[in-house]
Amino acid sequence: MSIKTKEDLFIHGLRDIYYAEKRIVKALPKMADKVDNTDLKAAFQTHKTETEEQVRRLEKVFEQLGQKAEGEECPAIEGIIDEAEELMDEIDDKDVLTAALLAGAQAVEHYEIARYGTLCQWASELGHEDSRKLLEKTLEEEKSTDKKLTKLAESQVNKQAA
Amino acid sequence: MSIKTKEDLFIHGLRDIYYAEKRIVKALPKMADKVDNTDLKAAFQTHKTETEEQVRRLEKVFEQLGQKAEGEECPAIEGIIDEAEELMDEIDDKDVLTAALLAGAQAVEHYEIARYGTLCQWASELGHEDSRKLLEKTLEEEKSTDKKLTKLAESQVNKQAA
Repeated sequence: MSIKTKEDLFIHGLRDIYYAEKRIVKALPKMADKVDNTDLKAAFQTHKTETEEQVRRLEKVFEQLGQKAEGEECPAIEGIIDEAEELMDEIDDKDVLTAALLAGAQAVEHYEIARYGTLCQWASELGHEDSRKLLEKTLEEEKSTDKKLTKLAESQVNKQAA
Repeated sequence: MSIKTKEDLFIHGLRDIYYAEKRIVKALPKMADKVDNTDLKAAFQTHKTETEEQVRRLEKVFEQLGQKAEGEECPAIEGIIDEAEELMDEIDDKDVLTAALLAGAQAVEHYEIARYGTLCQWASELGHEDSRKLLEKTLEEEKSTDKKLTKLAESQVNKQAA
């Protein structure tokens, strides 16, 4: 799409994160399969369900804006997930793999926090209050997932030390 | 490198962010050139100087660990910067470009916040207290840059509305 206005940029950003969320839905089961740690496995499975809901929420935003829900390839999320998947294949030790996957998942969350933060600001600036509310809901979920992953990483270390 | 232990993973993470920081040093002048807004131009220039210092700080960490300072290709930062640069070339309108560049810079900051957060945790877990201190200093700088960018994005909107 050609980007001439702030509104175009906003739609472009929505298509970027829509593509990213769908990519994440595909990556999470692979990550859950690889990991041995039951807490982290459960966290990945829960987050998959949550991400599917976030995809539907984005579809609602497209609908509110009278736009067709479609993705636009997002090299950023491709890079972040490629990096996590490459690491997954290189590591045999279970504890090291768990630490690597936790780190990869946090990089994904931070990408989403950055993008949804921007989208919320643009939505409110462009007067799309209903869309802003939906985007903010997802933003809060991503922040809470990031905190959950940090806690898991810390408890993982304490468990190994014990 | 082959990753067998947590220490290997930590070194891998340092090489990844070392590559990323150097990539950012190269990208920032291009972003500063493209942008018209004098506050954002100055912010990109200041951040370049800060990033160069962060590169040196990482070299000190490698030295503390008895490792050669070297980068390892980081597909994540490549993807994030490619996306920002693609957008830069597609947008003519100055205000829209400023908004897009601010968003791109915040995605970069969040990537770094995620990675340095993880590296600080691993450094402390592995007993590399001196390294943790250096990494934490950079982490705090990245968080403060992210806040600065958010404020700039907000003030930019107020200026346009005035």
